[in-house]
Amino acid sequence: MAKKRNIIVGQSGGPTAVINASLAGVYKTARERGFHKVYGMLHGVQGLLDEQYVDLSTQIHSDMDIELLKRTPSAFLGSCRYKLPEIHENPELYEKIFRILDKLQIEAFIYIGGNDSMDTIKKLADYAIIKGHTQKFLGVPKTIDNDLALTDHTPGFGSAAKYIAASTKEIIRDALGLSYNKENITVLEIMGRNAGWLTGATALAKTEECDGPDLIYLPEITFDMDKFLGKVEDLVKKQKNVVVAVSEGIKLADGRYVCELSGGGDYVDAFGHKQLQGTASYLAGFLGQKIGCKTRGVEFSTLQRCASHMASRTDIQEAFMVGGAAVKAADEGDTGMMVVIDRKSDDPYISVAGIYDVHRIANNEKVVPREWVNREGNYVTDEFIAYAKPLIQGSYHPYMVNGLPQHLVLKKNVRK
Amino acid sequence: MAKKRNIIVGQSGGPTAVINASLAGVYKTARERGFHKVYGMLHGVQGLLDEQYVDLSTQIHSDMDIELLKRTPSAFLGSCRYKLPEIHENPELYEKIFRILDKLQIEAFIYIGGNDSMDTIKKLADYAIIKGHTQKFLGVPKTIDNDLALTDHTPGFGSAAKYIAASTKEIIRDALGLSYNKENITVLEIMGRNAGWLTGATALAKTEECDGPDLIYLPEITFDMDKFLGKVEDLVKKQKNVVVAVSEGIKLADGRYVCELSGGGDYVDAFGHKQLQGTASYLAGFLGQKIGCKTRGVEFSTLQRCASHMASRTDIQEAFMVGGAAVKAADEGDTGMMVVIDRKSDDPYISVAGIYDVHRIANNEKVVPREWVNREGNYVTDEFIAYAKPLIQGSYHPYMVNGLPQHLVLKKNVRK
Repeated sequence: MAKKRNIIVGQSGGPTAVINASLAGVYKTARERGFHKVYGMLHGVQGLLDEQYVDLSTQIHSDMDIELLKRTPSAFLGSCRYKLPEIHENPELYEKIFRILDKLQIEAFIYIGGNDSMDTIKKLADYAIIKGHTQKFLGVPKTIDNDLALTDHTPGFGSAAKYIAASTKEIIRDALGLSYNKENITVLEIMGRNAGWLTGATALAKTEECDGPDLIYLPEITFDMDKFLGKVEDLVKKQKNVVVAVSEGIKLADGRYVCELSGGGDYVDAFGHKQLQGTASYLAGFLGQKIGCKTRGVEFSTLQRCASHMASRTDIQEAFMVGGAAVKAADEGDTGMMVVIDRKSDDPYISVAGIYDVHRIANNEKVVPREWVNREGNYVTDEFIAYAKPLIQGSYHPYMVNGLPQHLVLKKNVRK
Repeated sequence: MAKKRNIIVGQSGGPTAVINASLAGVYKTARERGFHKVYGMLHGVQGLLDEQYVDLSTQIHSDMDIELLKRTPSAFLGSCRYKLPEIHENPELYEKIFRILDKLQIEAFIYIGGNDSMDTIKKLADYAIIKGHTQKFLGVPKTIDNDLALTDHTPGFGSAAKYIAASTKEIIRDALGLSYNKENITVLEIMGRNAGWLTGATALAKTEECDGPDLIYLPEITFDMDKFLGKVEDLVKKQKNVVVAVSEGIKLADGRYVCELSGGGDYVDAFGHKQLQGTASYLAGFLGQKIGCKTRGVEFSTLQRCASHMASRTDIQEAFMVGGAAVKAADEGDTGMMVVIDRKSDDPYISVAGIYDVHRIANNEKVVPREWVNREGNYVTDEFIAYAKPLIQGSYHPYMVNGLPQHLVLKKNVRK
């Protein structure tokens, strides 16, 4: 009997609005290319180590299910934040993973995630080559933060940027409607620890009928409280209503996060990332005290990464494309690679899937280039906008059932 | 020469996603009923006192503009939080208003707002009758909080409830995708100082593929920190992932707001309303400390009242209907009245516009009845859901331009 050609796919790291579109792309392409079974790891490699997986044919029954999956936020299979040890630190763990893959007759292993997930692909691909295992390991990029190197942008960024820009427009309308002959300051807080791509996306709210935010502060630029205060004071005098967008990760010259000034931010996650909170509310309080007017902080929070109801069609389609491209690459014999998005043109916007060696990618954070921020360090340039604008184009309306977006969720009783 | 039949309309109080749909209803019906000019007060009565108004025919040029207005959040004309003094306290101010109305040959005065705005209608209508002025004064209800008496519900509530329920579904997916063999608690904070209608709307997230929040705490029910902790501890043991929805206005038995425990909440707005903040982040910190697991607070904040992109079609249509009904009532000679929504049936949902004496309405806050909350005081009942569900039905997609919802905004150079 010929060996079965099975494939397994997992999702890892912080969810996005389109991570399931990549899963849908993997599933559909695997089916089209004649893979026998498509398994899904439940909660990524961490779940796989506990032999938690699912045969996806028990979950996805139709093209409509695939469409519904594309409209479902967060990780359908469950995610994890689990970093593989170095091979020499724990070879038994690697052996265990490969025993499970062999048992399931896996030929290709696809992992959808960010920097830490690409590190997983690199280690597993290296281990396979060292030990003579034949499985192929492919990474599919995903992160709202857009901080992966070598790919023009990451799936998930466009939809988060669209949600942020649309919400910024709505909040600016709200602020303008309220302020009459009175100073009014709104501080928006956007996700992005070290990379300001999402904070910069608030500039997309600048359209023919909306001025957009007045000031934008990215984590790439050292934040100066005095200059900030001076700038806001000038604007408030001139126009009364001021809207400022700040990254959660803005830092002072001495290296402290601004939110640390409020006393917050003193615990750390499994990857050693500092947990941040409260930058907007801290700055709103600070401005209120100094300027003596009404201020408010608005934290966009979790909705930035799970608002499928405002997904970008461009983003959904690209997420689907890179999922499929990973399967194709694995099927053609590639391993230790990540699929990337190559931009061919801004206008008309054209992108294609490419592929790069994952050793060149993992653990390099891509930040906003200095030249895409203005000299004063308080707004993004037209180059930034030309880059980001194509990525928020097009809608992908939810399937509405009883007035609410419907999602595809895991049927647990048919797990194995 | 016959006297011109002009009409003036204003918007007041906190904006909603559909307050402009009511404005659209006023404008369209005024045109259809042969009013000559339709003026808009800029920033309500406060702007009117400064003779700030606009001829709406300089702003709205087509049926498409009317449709765009219905899709524009916040107060198109600008809002205010301005409470008229009692008549005997400042008769000169009333004289001033009527001089302006006479100058503009106003026959009907329509005010779109909440409790405080209905108080304005009452006072102006009383003053007109006392002094023999012939203008008619009509109120159009508006508030996301749904706390106006006598109307089945208020325009604005349905869209806010829809946004909240949809976002709750998305955040629950996000939470489930992340938690694997680990406790994870999410606390959602919803607007509603004294009335829990919006917080209760999180229960609408309970659908065939989503369990909805686990616990819901309304401001109508005294909040007990110990009972709350016990309940969450039990749930976390059982199911690991717990989502709790709380109103910003939950209070302890001693009358303190929960958010006051965090040191916040010590200033008061022009109407004497306490400004609240930080309930979710306070409770998330509290649970994290007591239970020792990962917790997060998510404040839905301003987006609840301005997310037109998730507006309910039912709500938009009713908001438009009550705006038109106010014009019709004024045209037929009514004054000192507020248009209300009368529900004729839950399923199929049928509602019509009614009208009530504004003296019976103003300044009575309608709260969630005790029997629509369960005995334990930590969830709403099926009666609540049957009441709220019809109000979130149907979508009203934004007009998307360059990937973002387009809005109609005031053209300032043609103000007069």
